[in-house]
Amino acid sequence: MTTTVDTTSSDSTRDARGEDAVEPDAIENELDRPIRPERRASTNDVVVARTDVEWLGRYLLGTWAEVRMGARELTARPELQRIEGLGLDEHRERVFGQLKLLVENGQVHRAFPKSVGGEDDHGGNIAGFEELVTADPSLQIKSGVQWGLFGAAVLHLGTSYHHETFLPGIMSLEVPGAFAMTETGHGSDVAAIGTTATYDEATQEFVIDTPFRGAWKDYLGNAAKDGVAAVLFAQLVTKNVNHGVHAFFVPIRDAATGEFLPGVGGEDDGLKGGLNGIDNGRLHFDGVRIPRVNLLNRYGDIAEDGTYSSPIASPGRRFFTMLGTLVQGRVSLDGASTAAAKIALKIAITYGNERRQFTAGSDTDEEVLLDYQLHQKRLMPKLATTYAASFAHEQLLTKFDQVFSGAADTDDDRQDLETLAAALKPLSTWHALETLQEAREACGGAGFLAENRLVGLRADLDVYATFEGDNHVLLQLVAKRLLSDYGKRFAKADFGVLARYVVEQAAGRTVNSSGLRSLGQTIVDFGSTARSVGQLRDASAQRQLLTDRVHTMVAEVAGKLRPAPKMSKKDAAALFNQHQSEIIEAARAHAELLQWEAFTEALEGEQGLASGMDDSTRVVLTWLRDLFGLGLIEKHLDWYLMHGRLSPKRAQAVGLYTERLSARLRPHAQDLVDAFGYGPEHLRAAIATGAEKERQTEAREYYRAARAAGTLPAEEKSLGKKP
Amino acid sequence: MTTTVDTTSSDSTRDARGEDAVEPDAIENELDRPIRPERRASTNDVVVARTDVEWLGRYLLGTWAEVRMGARELTARPELQRIEGLGLDEHRERVFGQLKLLVENGQVHRAFPKSVGGEDDHGGNIAGFEELVTADPSLQIKSGVQWGLFGAAVLHLGTSYHHETFLPGIMSLEVPGAFAMTETGHGSDVAAIGTTATYDEATQEFVIDTPFRGAWKDYLGNAAKDGVAAVLFAQLVTKNVNHGVHAFFVPIRDAATGEFLPGVGGEDDGLKGGLNGIDNGRLHFDGVRIPRVNLLNRYGDIAEDGTYSSPIASPGRRFFTMLGTLVQGRVSLDGASTAAAKIALKIAITYGNERRQFTAGSDTDEEVLLDYQLHQKRLMPKLATTYAASFAHEQLLTKFDQVFSGAADTDDDRQDLETLAAALKPLSTWHALETLQEAREACGGAGFLAENRLVGLRADLDVYATFEGDNHVLLQLVAKRLLSDYGKRFAKADFGVLARYVVEQAAGRTVNSSGLRSLGQTIVDFGSTARSVGQLRDASAQRQLLTDRVHTMVAEVAGKLRPAPKMSKKDAAALFNQHQSEIIEAARAHAELLQWEAFTEALEGEQGLASGMDDSTRVVLTWLRDLFGLGLIEKHLDWYLMHGRLSPKRAQAVGLYTERLSARLRPHAQDLVDAFGYGPEHLRAAIATGAEKERQTEAREYYRAARAAGTLPAEEKSLGKKP
Repeated sequence: MTTTVDTTSSDSTRDARGEDAVEPDAIENELDRPIRPERRASTNDVVVARTDVEWLGRYLLGTWAEVRMGARELTARPELQRIEGLGLDEHRERVFGQLKLLVENGQVHRAFPKSVGGEDDHGGNIAGFEELVTADPSLQIKSGVQWGLFGAAVLHLGTSYHHETFLPGIMSLEVPGAFAMTETGHGSDVAAIGTTATYDEATQEFVIDTPFRGAWKDYLGNAAKDGVAAVLFAQLVTKNVNHGVHAFFVPIRDAATGEFLPGVGGEDDGLKGGLNGIDNGRLHFDGVRIPRVNLLNRYGDIAEDGTYSSPIASPGRRFFTMLGTLVQGRVSLDGASTAAAKIALKIAITYGNERRQFTAGSDTDEEVLLDYQLHQKRLMPKLATTYAASFAHEQLLTKFDQVFSGAADTDDDRQDLETLAAALKPLSTWHALETLQEAREACGGAGFLAENRLVGLRADLDVYATFEGDNHVLLQLVAKRLLSDYGKRFAKADFGVLARYVVEQAAGRTVNSSGLRSLGQTIVDFGSTARSVGQLRDASAQRQLLTDRVHTMVAEVAGKLRPAPKMSKKDAAALFNQHQSEIIEAARAHAELLQWEAFTEALEGEQGLASGMDDSTRVVLTWLRDLFGLGLIEKHLDWYLMHGRLSPKRAQAVGLYTERLSARLRPHAQDLVDAFGYGPEHLRAAIATGAEKERQTEAREYYRAARAAGTLPAEEKSLGKKP
Repeated sequence: MTTTVDTTSSDSTRDARGEDAVEPDAIENELDRPIRPERRASTNDVVVARTDVEWLGRYLLGTWAEVRMGARELTARPELQRIEGLGLDEHRERVFGQLKLLVENGQVHRAFPKSVGGEDDHGGNIAGFEELVTADPSLQIKSGVQWGLFGAAVLHLGTSYHHETFLPGIMSLEVPGAFAMTETGHGSDVAAIGTTATYDEATQEFVIDTPFRGAWKDYLGNAAKDGVAAVLFAQLVTKNVNHGVHAFFVPIRDAATGEFLPGVGGEDDGLKGGLNGIDNGRLHFDGVRIPRVNLLNRYGDIAEDGTYSSPIASPGRRFFTMLGTLVQGRVSLDGASTAAAKIALKIAITYGNERRQFTAGSDTDEEVLLDYQLHQKRLMPKLATTYAASFAHEQLLTKFDQVFSGAADTDDDRQDLETLAAALKPLSTWHALETLQEAREACGGAGFLAENRLVGLRADLDVYATFEGDNHVLLQLVAKRLLSDYGKRFAKADFGVLARYVVEQAAGRTVNSSGLRSLGQTIVDFGSTARSVGQLRDASAQRQLLTDRVHTMVAEVAGKLRPAPKMSKKDAAALFNQHQSEIIEAARAHAELLQWEAFTEALEGEQGLASGMDDSTRVVLTWLRDLFGLGLIEKHLDWYLMHGRLSPKRAQAVGLYTERLSARLRPHAQDLVDAFGYGPEHLRAAIATGAEKERQTEAREYYRAARAAGTLPAEEKSLGKKP
């Protein structure tokens, strides 16, 4: 039986169809060829792949290299480092003491205004702060609470009165404080918190109340023990109108006695899964009165007579503007998580390069773990993702600095920054947890010992996935931005408009690092891509595949949600809920693309920090970027297959090719983790000190000498006799 | 342009091709139809889906229900439970004291022979032991070290002299002991350990030596502090021949003083990522002499004159036989991990059913977390997998009991048991970690507090993934068994033989629960499967898809490894390494199929434990099994697409259908976790006590009353005026 197919009308399957003409083993053959040497374009000379570790190390340090180096010198000091196994009270005390050391070393004031002794250096401040994770994540987060949240809220939500009155004590740690936003009943949905601050015209005071148990402030660092004040978020009520959530400076403890002030109560959150150097706790308020001027009034103010005013008319926009000023928490978690992933990989790859287990291809010599394909598969893609996350973080931090320094501080800039942070923080915090866990398992029983750091870091970083914005909630925010961008462009567009848009965009690249990347490729355009394995290595093919996925996912979801505006609120919510997983997947795809773009831009640059990259290093980094990009495509292979973007044969090649890349990068693994620049004083892992290599050498030498001396007993099995 | 395609010769694409005739929206339409009511076959009456929680609870308790219930009564006693935040020394002391309580309660002797006061009850022993995880995993593992490893080695590797001499002290805890197998240098590769036991004919003693640092015994429970003896694994050397690894009973400490005996030394492993109630440590030996009779001589003996003898001629088989007697460690970890996953889901689903966040479809009422699609997607598939793991564990435990009771104890039975344990333990231990983590994140900040148990359990269970056999190494063992079974059947088979075999097997089902499942379906047969979404619900379609995948993966790998026997050892090892990931994936697929079969058998049974299952409960469990089965297919969708087993359209339906199933099961979620039978005394999680529900009720009542009284301030945003 024969069927006639008109291929001109079925472009969507062209890729799969066209392949039938290809020799079936062509892909396998291509993969089996020896690694194609990279050649210099100008001279056609072969370029050897070799990493310039020193240069790459400097490149990874990024714009704020000096601050990072300084912070690393600090975290190398034992008195700032975590001691494993300290009890709760001792650990808290130690970390509070370490905060004082930071003050003494002038490490914590960079972000504050010059007028109060700071440096107005926002990017540098975060860069230095992130590195504290290598000493003790509790130290990082406790100083983040004091200066990054409590202090930053006074700075960004307050005005000069607050800066002059409160910042000096905050900066010097004379006034340790809590950032009292989250309540037992409301974490991600800050707008719905229950605490109220009601203005009393008679006394010109706010009265703070906790109306029910669910409105207790909860999980607050500095609340259980050290805090003498708090920036408290509450519904501002005046003249019987609720103007929404605002921030207030509220004293909570008598600094001299450590006792709660009248009307304030609380509880200790007790032991946690990690970060036990921080005294998280709960607070509640009963008729606590604070002066009118304690309202941090940059975005909303109360006159003496109780009249409310705000520079931002829309209560919704006002709320998001206030929260937006606190984006630095997410920015710094992105960087700190990436630093932790670097530490994990440096430990596991160093050990995997020394540890031997099982004789496979020899009678006597055991194999080095990292020579096993599976071990490569477990660690090399994580290494590639860590590089991607590192370069993406550098872009995020730069954007953050531009906004907060005022260099580029439009509404759009702020929105882009917030979307970028909301996209990258989920990926990097989850990646850190996965990497720490894979590293721990890859080190076997040794990985489970506290002396090798991995379990402690993992326990501490666990909560990074849900604080400063639950990762899923953040991805949902990103998705809403993508959908809204999409909606603005295509609100009334029919298919023809969309197709033209795609064709226009295919020519150039829209550099919009947080909104919808618009480099659209529809199915129509895609038949010609990735027709050979080699082509998958091309950055443009990877970009096309990754971008197309984001674009298509957003368009699909947008289409499904189209009826929502005409629906009742209840039905619209149900429709949205029915597609919630897809929505979040689209945001994740977008965030992955941003990481890939950042890696690619880092590779392609030739000026500034990138200047001086030699061809040999670029070859290694390009393989690593390819491993990241193709790894993403492999991870979502089902999507590419279901949407006809890759034929089955081609799809199989993707997996084979990432394996090949992992093997190709294997000899460079040590260089690539060495370039992270963390020394033994930062790793502090017994298995990454070379001790394993010594043990292996000693054992092999023992057997070698015994064999040479003829003292090694014969093996029963090699005698081949029945006992 | 037109192309002519001869479809008669391209059966592999028949599925994709055939679908073109189907209305494109047919799948979507079918999914959009209201849930089809289940009907009783005999009467066509509609069956309501409703779980008989009490009946299901009894069913889940399995064959050793009474022992489990007894153990749960015990773990409900506060003195046996973990206290969070104890220091290392206190925790160790507490757990050692708890072991004495177990002895006093007669909980630990079931597995030992009646001749020494035991009960010869192997399955019951493990069932009771597993439940200890709910009190404190340290208690479970420490008692596992004492009685399941140290004692069991004396029992299974020793003979009557050892039973009479050593077991009483071990059973009474008078002689706490270590299981000294692993060395710093060798974990998974036990055959390569360095410790030697050299027979001295002159004194009729063995001399124990640690030849180098890497041969120190390491990670041994009871070694740091409590152990006064050890079962030590060492290379047995006599007459200058090494007969391989054997076990010896070796005193290590003076019971009165707690000091090491002469020639013995050691170190504390210190703090670990979890299980800190156990005193893991290192041991080394320098010329330590033990009597000849301290060789545990069931599988290998030394005459007074130093002549070695063994009932098993092959050194390799002897070694694996010895190790095989210790399979119970893996069996019990499989059960304990599944118990921990049950605890995690009971906590997270109870909380997810009470916690509210964000108003979506209403102005005032917030949504219950479990009503969000994403929350369902995060928890419901994990619930399905936990049921699958639970039913699979019951089969494993039954098999274990049959072998160790002697009811079915052939070589094949033992091999099947070992393969089954090696297949299930990796899946269930990883599943427990993933479930604990997902539950922790699903509970947000509350999940991070020690008072809610999830972080502590996760920390403790972390090492389950790498001890008693690293999970990847175990899966590799399974794969080798699959390949060897395959090789036996098809060593010289050409394609025609294989095809006939497949057709033969397609008729009936080969029940071989650990070897290669042979229900082969080749591509040729597969065109007719899953042509509609509804069909995916059929057990036979799920079985076909899952079985086909295992079969095909094994056959593919076998084909690639075919040249190995003719290669040099080095080249063969390289070839094997080149396909290591595929090999392990095939084993994982096999293990997943075993879980699916166990779930399905549990559903289909009508006698014994299964008798009395009402139709309503069966409906719910069938949905849950479908969610598990289709979830596996979804997870490996790329494979099904690349191998032409599912068309793109059909593949998209799989994901939609698992979402639909999660939503359908959502109203039954609480029943399904309640059936696990763990009460508040086992959960001990503040968020799973109903406290959240009380808080939610209080908050909603507060707002309701205020609205009714007209005292709730108006919302600025609803006034719609500029402030």
